[in-house]
Amino acid sequence: MISIEEMATFCKRRGFIYPNSEIYGGLTGFFDYGPLGVEIKNNIKKEWWNTFVRRREDIVGIDGSIITHPKVWDASGHTSSFQDIMIECKKCKERYRADQLIESITKERADGWSIKKIESFIKKQKIKCQKCNGELAEAAPFNLMFHTYVGPKQDKESLAYLRPETAQVIFTNFKLVQENARLKLPFGIAQIGKAFRNEISPRNFLFRSREFEQMEIEYFVHPKKREECEQIGEVENHELFIYSEKMQEEESKPKKMKIKEALSKRIIKNPWHAYWLATCHQWFISLGAHQDHFRIRQHVKDELSHYSTDTWDIEYEFPFGWKELLGIADRGDYDLKQHMHHSKKDLSLFDEETKEKIIPQVIAEPSIGVDRTFLVFLYDAYTYDKKRENIVLKLHPKLAPILVAVFPLLSNKQELTKKARDVFNMLKEEFSCFYDASGSIGRRYSRQDEVGTPFCITIDFDSLTQQDVTIRLRDTTEQKRVKEKELKETIDKLIKEYKS
Amino acid sequence: MISIEEMATFCKRRGFIYPNSEIYGGLTGFFDYGPLGVEIKNNIKKEWWNTFVRRREDIVGIDGSIITHPKVWDASGHTSSFQDIMIECKKCKERYRADQLIESITKERADGWSIKKIESFIKKQKIKCQKCNGELAEAAPFNLMFHTYVGPKQDKESLAYLRPETAQVIFTNFKLVQENARLKLPFGIAQIGKAFRNEISPRNFLFRSREFEQMEIEYFVHPKKREECEQIGEVENHELFIYSEKMQEEESKPKKMKIKEALSKRIIKNPWHAYWLATCHQWFISLGAHQDHFRIRQHVKDELSHYSTDTWDIEYEFPFGWKELLGIADRGDYDLKQHMHHSKKDLSLFDEETKEKIIPQVIAEPSIGVDRTFLVFLYDAYTYDKKRENIVLKLHPKLAPILVAVFPLLSNKQELTKKARDVFNMLKEEFSCFYDASGSIGRRYSRQDEVGTPFCITIDFDSLTQQDVTIRLRDTTEQKRVKEKELKETIDKLIKEYKS
Repeated sequence: MISIEEMATFCKRRGFIYPNSEIYGGLTGFFDYGPLGVEIKNNIKKEWWNTFVRRREDIVGIDGSIITHPKVWDASGHTSSFQDIMIECKKCKERYRADQLIESITKERADGWSIKKIESFIKKQKIKCQKCNGELAEAAPFNLMFHTYVGPKQDKESLAYLRPETAQVIFTNFKLVQENARLKLPFGIAQIGKAFRNEISPRNFLFRSREFEQMEIEYFVHPKKREECEQIGEVENHELFIYSEKMQEEESKPKKMKIKEALSKRIIKNPWHAYWLATCHQWFISLGAHQDHFRIRQHVKDELSHYSTDTWDIEYEFPFGWKELLGIADRGDYDLKQHMHHSKKDLSLFDEETKEKIIPQVIAEPSIGVDRTFLVFLYDAYTYDKKRENIVLKLHPKLAPILVAVFPLLSNKQELTKKARDVFNMLKEEFSCFYDASGSIGRRYSRQDEVGTPFCITIDFDSLTQQDVTIRLRDTTEQKRVKEKELKETIDKLIKEYKS
Repeated sequence: MISIEEMATFCKRRGFIYPNSEIYGGLTGFFDYGPLGVEIKNNIKKEWWNTFVRRREDIVGIDGSIITHPKVWDASGHTSSFQDIMIECKKCKERYRADQLIESITKERADGWSIKKIESFIKKQKIKCQKCNGELAEAAPFNLMFHTYVGPKQDKESLAYLRPETAQVIFTNFKLVQENARLKLPFGIAQIGKAFRNEISPRNFLFRSREFEQMEIEYFVHPKKREECEQIGEVENHELFIYSEKMQEEESKPKKMKIKEALSKRIIKNPWHAYWLATCHQWFISLGAHQDHFRIRQHVKDELSHYSTDTWDIEYEFPFGWKELLGIADRGDYDLKQHMHHSKKDLSLFDEETKEKIIPQVIAEPSIGVDRTFLVFLYDAYTYDKKRENIVLKLHPKLAPILVAVFPLLSNKQELTKKARDVFNMLKEEFSCFYDASGSIGRRYSRQDEVGTPFCITIDFDSLTQQDVTIRLRDTTEQKRVKEKELKETIDKLIKEYKS
């Protein structure tokens, strides 16, 4: 597995990701997607939306604004609680995120520690500034929301925040969406969009950036039917590595088991949690990620967010360790109640059966970072092929930035280039295509292997008389002869049957 | 044509658009897309990207970050020049955008006027505060960029801006993109993404909001080949209403003419401008907008942005007048030169023919607002059908939020619902589908008509024995009987052949 720095270099070299404003020295924690990166990212978002919104009847989407009313964040608790503990060097004024400083020096996991605990630990361990060895000042909370001012005045009244998560925009629209889409519990509301966190020290390339994109679902259930999950049957036999709170306490290893076993042993208590963890894991696998590179881990008590009673993360093993990809929190009715209280609006639903007003509960919020997902798919696709002496990016065809590359065998024979153009023009109506006539065929294959193009099509002299072409498969370098008129069908079939 | 307020009400009622943070009284100039709105918006973006990026070899895409380095905006001129003239009431402290205040009272177009001109006009016309009739203070410039601070400190060093346009992120990545994608002039770089402008008084619903989305291309040409547009032949015979600077001066009406006539008469001087104006106009028409609801208008001298020597807008006739939808500015080499100067980086290209370094010029930047585009398609689709006594939203099938609705004739007959479910499940893999079993068929048709669903499929008792269904067309209410196994094909054909 290549390091995250090597991955960043590869991504820049191939036009996947650039540091933002690079010509001005960059802006830490911000990235731009280049020509091929944006195609992969769009493909990820499309696949997610199709799977979780378009093809489901119980989930609808929205797309809310990034700048939102400050009261939203008062209600959600973010203005008071969305903070990291910061610590400053008395001498050189360098600022650190306290838990990261502790972790980098002592390997102790300090995420979620109180200010008091942090300060006494730093004192006890005699931790100093890593830059100048100066003494550290008192720790202090630092709110991670970016703020700005809306309108021609700059004052308390005009203060507004860039959303630090997409979830709240779902809650504020909850009632309108439920009514418009005539949704009945259980149901979900989904959103893809950017969110912003003013991280004290962004790190690990796309993994922890200040501007990122989320794909999120808030899934609501009836408060008295928190465990009624009809769909659980669909995933009962799904297997994954489980790392419960208890296993972590006992310092045992994660165990691979089936969902039904985890439920029957009450390792995962709520079937909706199990359902969403399995479903999201399946989604990654269906798009070419490796099943065993993931595990699900339960949050231990002092990690839990202020709104959650139980949270499970899907984690992925990055070169810098097991890290969160996706959190599934049981938010209960915390958010809707908070917004009801702060807005004085009734966000409850009417239960036709019991003739009561009820406040739905968020049993799970499968919320995935798009950029982290991008990294996962890139890591699981990245291979170095010794025989080819080249990087081969084995992306699933549904994610590949270019699906089909079309080559004339020679670039200086007009019959060949004309025919190749015809094939290219036919295919590009349906697929993402790239035409390349420069360099040897071997060189052209290598270029496509490195950016993950699963299918290369070559038009040679036989093509002119036989009306067929060579299709070469990226993963195996296998070549097949295909009739021109069966080409679209063949490609469709190859996509459908793809196994990495 | 319904008013913009009526449109806003309709959009909210049908789940297209909500005011942001409505439960907290809203945040002026910010909107959220609801369940059906987000589908239309995504369809618009997809169609644009397919047309202008995926299917073209001369254009590649990127997706840059929203928060960018402040030096980017120094170089572009935005920190010093991206401003509106603001005027405050001495008494009640209400703030106005000066040109809008003047326009609303005197109908005089004051966009682009200098502070001096505005002040003397206000004095001469004795314009007072519209709220309290108080005297107005001196006019002052107001920068429209939202600012924030990046990192744990809040000072001059950490100041950053939310991009007020997507263009600059293209320029800062120009060299990396050109190299990675091996682009040769002429070529374009495209981007879809959000931009933010702290408008003094946002108005007209989605038309002028503070957070909006752009679909943008920066199209670069060789500085010595500014008029060499090979593609012009594709649009020569395209017709549109033209409103040149001269026609505006002479107060004559716009003239409908072919592109080749406009070029030969030198009304449009640069063929690239003509090409892009026609191509973008065609894109709107191809997705169901009405050809004659658009005109192209040349900017008069005092309207021109600081970076442009010639700009043409595509305008649409909204209920509140002819308004800009899309601007095609000749930016020349202004931006690249500015960034070279400020970053000290070489952004020039090497001309293989003449062996010289050249700085490419932006001959056109077809930059369309997604939200304005959304409004245009909604306006052109919105009809009231007297016979049906209902709104019929005649959206192009490629834009419709739901493409196919599937109904069992009766909801209490299991044979029918089972069959309807089968049809629904088959279709939803490919199309955006909606299943509805509640209410009379007439009522169900009405609901779909109002949200623009072009095809409704009903499963009746004959379907059970004949394996066929009724497909009903939204625009004409025409009904056809179609074999179940030919359904997908039929729908594909109907989309392809759709004419509004």
